[in-house]
Amino acid sequence: MKRRGIVLLSGGLDSATAAADALDRGFELYALTFEYGQRHSIEVQAAKRVADALAVEQHVVLPIDLAVFGGSALTGDAQVPKDRTHEEIGGGIPVTYVPARNTIFLAYALAWAEVLNAYDIFIGVNCVDYSGYPDCRPEYVAAFQTMGRLATKAGVEGEGALTIHTPLLTLSKGEIIQRGLELGVDYALTSSCYDPSSDGKACGRCDACALRRAGFEKAGVVDPIEYQSPGGS
Amino acid sequence: MKRRGIVLLSGGLDSATAAADALDRGFELYALTFEYGQRHSIEVQAAKRVADALAVEQHVVLPIDLAVFGGSALTGDAQVPKDRTHEEIGGGIPVTYVPARNTIFLAYALAWAEVLNAYDIFIGVNCVDYSGYPDCRPEYVAAFQTMGRLATKAGVEGEGALTIHTPLLTLSKGEIIQRGLELGVDYALTSSCYDPSSDGKACGRCDACALRRAGFEKAGVVDPIEYQSPGGS
Repeated sequence: MKRRGIVLLSGGLDSATAAADALDRGFELYALTFEYGQRHSIEVQAAKRVADALAVEQHVVLPIDLAVFGGSALTGDAQVPKDRTHEEIGGGIPVTYVPARNTIFLAYALAWAEVLNAYDIFIGVNCVDYSGYPDCRPEYVAAFQTMGRLATKAGVEGEGALTIHTPLLTLSKGEIIQRGLELGVDYALTSSCYDPSSDGKACGRCDACALRRAGFEKAGVVDPIEYQSPGGS
Repeated sequence: MKRRGIVLLSGGLDSATAAADALDRGFELYALTFEYGQRHSIEVQAAKRVADALAVEQHVVLPIDLAVFGGSALTGDAQVPKDRTHEEIGGGIPVTYVPARNTIFLAYALAWAEVLNAYDIFIGVNCVDYSGYPDCRPEYVAAFQTMGRLATKAGVEGEGALTIHTPLLTLSKGEIIQRGLELGVDYALTSSCYDPSSDGKACGRCDACALRRAGFEKAGVVDPIEYQSPGGS
């Protein structure tokens, strides 16, 4: 029997690449997507396209309320910043940071893992381009793994030890794209923009678009998605 | 200015006591209740009564879906067991265990703490009566605290260190009740039963009722709530 794994799938290019990596390692894959905040429909549609294309075993889309506490531009509290430089993007915690988001996402993944008897969770975080997010750092992921091993039946009964896999942790955006292309990821299916138009076109100017465009440029390939504005990075 | 604290408030007697303890220590208190699974309306009503009686600063009731993954009698997958002995209750992980529940609860509390600039979270877990739950053990709580310190802005910017307070951790149910009575908790407002009738009467026979009844007996006081069946422990 194949080993089961869970992947947190956002619809963006990082998580699509992490999912492809898990499949490449031979896991039977279960994908978990959260529906929250202002941009949920376009992101969730992208996640569904990616889950279909990768033929995952099961895809759960879970609505959660991250706006109830406030505190983030991605859940409606402030404007998404545009036209920032790479230095600005990398310096400090941005207003698009959602408090404890990865902890909430991984906590749900842990619950599903326990029900599935899975011990492997894949998350597409990386600490190169998103150095400003505390919950993308290697020491955070390691601490979650330690906590997760203690939190579950498997930890008590000694059945198996949870592993949080972060295949993109130390890769730059350009390297992530190169790795994904090797694995056959179709990036035309993904959506990265923090502020897309109602028809799903990326703004081209938010931090996520800026990092994505620079990544494709460094990888030396054309980004297959459409942008509202023609500018580059 | 008073220090802000968050308490996970279920409507049961443990969390009401933990909340009273936090108030007694001088915290400005924010209460967080989750609405999930089969018994939510009666539990949430009890949590609202307790939050009102304790005059907390704010009470958020957050609907979450813990049934989507299955795997627990408390979210509809199996019968709630009745008439078990204390040895049976203490031996192994019961079917009422909800996978990763405390991790999900604490993850949301962490998000709210970050928005409130709070560094103190109170949870009414104890490892005496609920030894079968992996996520009630001291080593689990300590690991969550370590992870939570790394997960947040405060951890990166050095503003403050998260503390997960577990004032009931090593108390028996009888001791919890004695402590709560000293603090002025009105246990008539609380609800502990895993399987109450539609009018809110406790079954008197599930694990939670058995532990509650035995606790009041040991504390030498009368349990002020109504039971469907007259039997005792």
